Amino acid sequence: MTRTELSTIGEFGLISRINQQFTPQLSQTIKGIGDDAAVIDTGTDEYLLVSTDMLVEGVHFDLSYAPLKHLGYKAIAVNVSDIAAMNGIPRQVTVSVGLSNRFSVEAIDELYAGIQAACEAYKVDLVGGDTTASRSGLVISVTALGVVEKSKIAYRNGAKPNDIICVTGDLGAAYVGLQLLEREKREFLENPNMQPELEDKSYVVGRQLKPEARTDIVYELQDAGVIPTSMIDISDGLASEILHLCTQSGVGAQVFEENLPIADETYLANDEFKLSPLTGALNGGEDYELLFTIQQSDYEKIKNSPHISFVGFMTNQPDQVELITKGGGRFPIQAQGWQHLSK
Amino acid sequence: MTRTELSTIGEFGLISRINQQFTPQLSQTIKGIGDDAAVIDTGTDEYLLVSTDMLVEGVHFDLSYAPLKHLGYKAIAVNVSDIAAMNGIPRQVTVSVGLSNRFSVEAIDELYAGIQAACEAYKVDLVGGDTTASRSGLVISVTALGVVEKSKIAYRNGAKPNDIICVTGDLGAAYVGLQLLEREKREFLENPNMQPELEDKSYVVGRQLKPEARTDIVYELQDAGVIPTSMIDISDGLASEILHLCTQSGVGAQVFEENLPIADETYLANDEFKLSPLTGALNGGEDYELLFTIQQSDYEKIKNSPHISFVGFMTNQPDQVELITKGGGRFPIQAQGWQHLSK
Repeated sequence: MTRTELSTIGEFGLISRINQQFTPQLSQTIKGIGDDAAVIDTGTDEYLLVSTDMLVEGVHFDLSYAPLKHLGYKAIAVNVSDIAAMNGIPRQVTVSVGLSNRFSVEAIDELYAGIQAACEAYKVDLVGGDTTASRSGLVISVTALGVVEKSKIAYRNGAKPNDIICVTGDLGAAYVGLQLLEREKREFLENPNMQPELEDKSYVVGRQLKPEARTDIVYELQDAGVIPTSMIDISDGLASEILHLCTQSGVGAQVFEENLPIADETYLANDEFKLSPLTGALNGGEDYELLFTIQQSDYEKIKNSPHISFVGFMTNQPDQVELITKGGGRFPIQAQGWQHLSK
Repeated sequence: MTRTELSTIGEFGLISRINQQFTPQLSQTIKGIGDDAAVIDTGTDEYLLVSTDMLVEGVHFDLSYAPLKHLGYKAIAVNVSDIAAMNGIPRQVTVSVGLSNRFSVEAIDELYAGIQAACEAYKVDLVGGDTTASRSGLVISVTALGVVEKSKIAYRNGAKPNDIICVTGDLGAAYVGLQLLEREKREFLENPNMQPELEDKSYVVGRQLKPEARTDIVYELQDAGVIPTSMIDISDGLASEILHLCTQSGVGAQVFEENLPIADETYLANDEFKLSPLTGALNGGEDYELLFTIQQSDYEKIKNSPHISFVGFMTNQPDQVELITKGGGRFPIQAQGWQHLSK
């Protein structure tokens, strides 16, 4: 029998292979796999949104520097972020946890304290879950439910040429925060008497350990009377996400380096590693900001928002998704993607 | 800092500890943790049901004898079973999978072929999920959504004294099927040239490897005009489940050994192990049959069903949940519970 290694097809190959197999059959299923959340018609003027994520120890987090309370918070936030990315409001979550007897009751209390803090912050109810043994590391699987008015839903595939590309908050901080945490871990392993040097790094480290979902933006857009023409959350880096929007919408894009929002703390932290902050912004991931497009006519309504940067525009050339550098160079934007399985 | 071992509080202790922390805040959340599925009001005459389960390699399944296709089927069936246990109809599922590069593309195709077969069998759409690396074994997390007419929902807490206790299908087969598979595995490890001796054991082995959710019973009860007063699915064994119904409903129960449905194949297979089939029926688990109660006045409507056995009745003595043996003895029913974390 043939054996094809997973690494030969990669994450996106695997997802599209699965995707092809499953075509929704029910009239209530408006959108299955392929967006930030599934979309279900329950027979009201709102759609039900469903999103799910699995976090695995040693792949998505390292308990040697991620406090369990932050981890619990993050597990909820990243799923709420998927609901926000449909222009939706989160309502309920389920949380399943696989754990070994390496974890004490007190440790699990910490994890759930973080989950609870996130439930309060995002005003969602934890309504179910499963607790089970795991032979190895901690596994956390969260499903989030949310709602969105039918007329306000934002898919990945609605962008049109000339739409303005918007990014919330700032990019690349979570990535350089991770580099710092990994460096401290290496140094600690070499010299356990070392004291961590993270005092002035709280912003970028916090962005890695305890990201926030931008539900505030959903409300802000609603108040401004703006419905995004397309939207996605930035979990894998701007490059990967803009390509998703372009591919699914059948458009191209021009993104201007000088317009990319990058925090001063992110610049400073990148200096230490002699890294370009652009790398983290484009390919770092885990910022959980929102990337969306708006019609040009909506620009006036949100141009003064302190939370939104206008980084480029969509074009009618689907094969050209480009970064325009500060020096005026044009480079194709490429997705680095997800490489866990090939490691 | 104090360290309390998980084994000192056990699964039910952990669940109730978590449960106490999370009180639903939203008016749309009708029922959170504590039943087979969460219950959400979406503003129609149907409730939305949500249930989730996590299956972990080495804890819930052993790939040395569980074919991946069956495993995929089972992962869906056990979640659909939770929807059925609310008297509901399943509609959508999400499936997240954590896997290592030990798995080939072909192996994952097998897993998803089983998932697909179950989606077709239960008429549900797979609408989302996550695929991620796992440092160790296979982890499968499924969330099922379903619906139930508000007037027909069956909770665990609605049983009344004198209600008749009903069980679908037969009990204990999955447990003895597991004993057979474990024995074949041990013998194969001792002598790899051995041929498996499972030819005439297909019923009990099949019940372990590929259980079915009893959505057919939900339709049958609907056709008969019967709404169960309480319901739960039998995942941990009849003893554990009847105690859940009694505790949550505030009633006692008398269950008659002679009325317990046990298949001939289950008796025969138990003989080989010199085990009592009663053990598997009461404490074996994984049968995924439904346990429910009905008003006495509904008995006539379903008494001739070939799928339902009437095994006892509820009483007004909450502290007495008893098995009446064939010899007339009375024994308190005790839950063995879930011991994964104490191993």
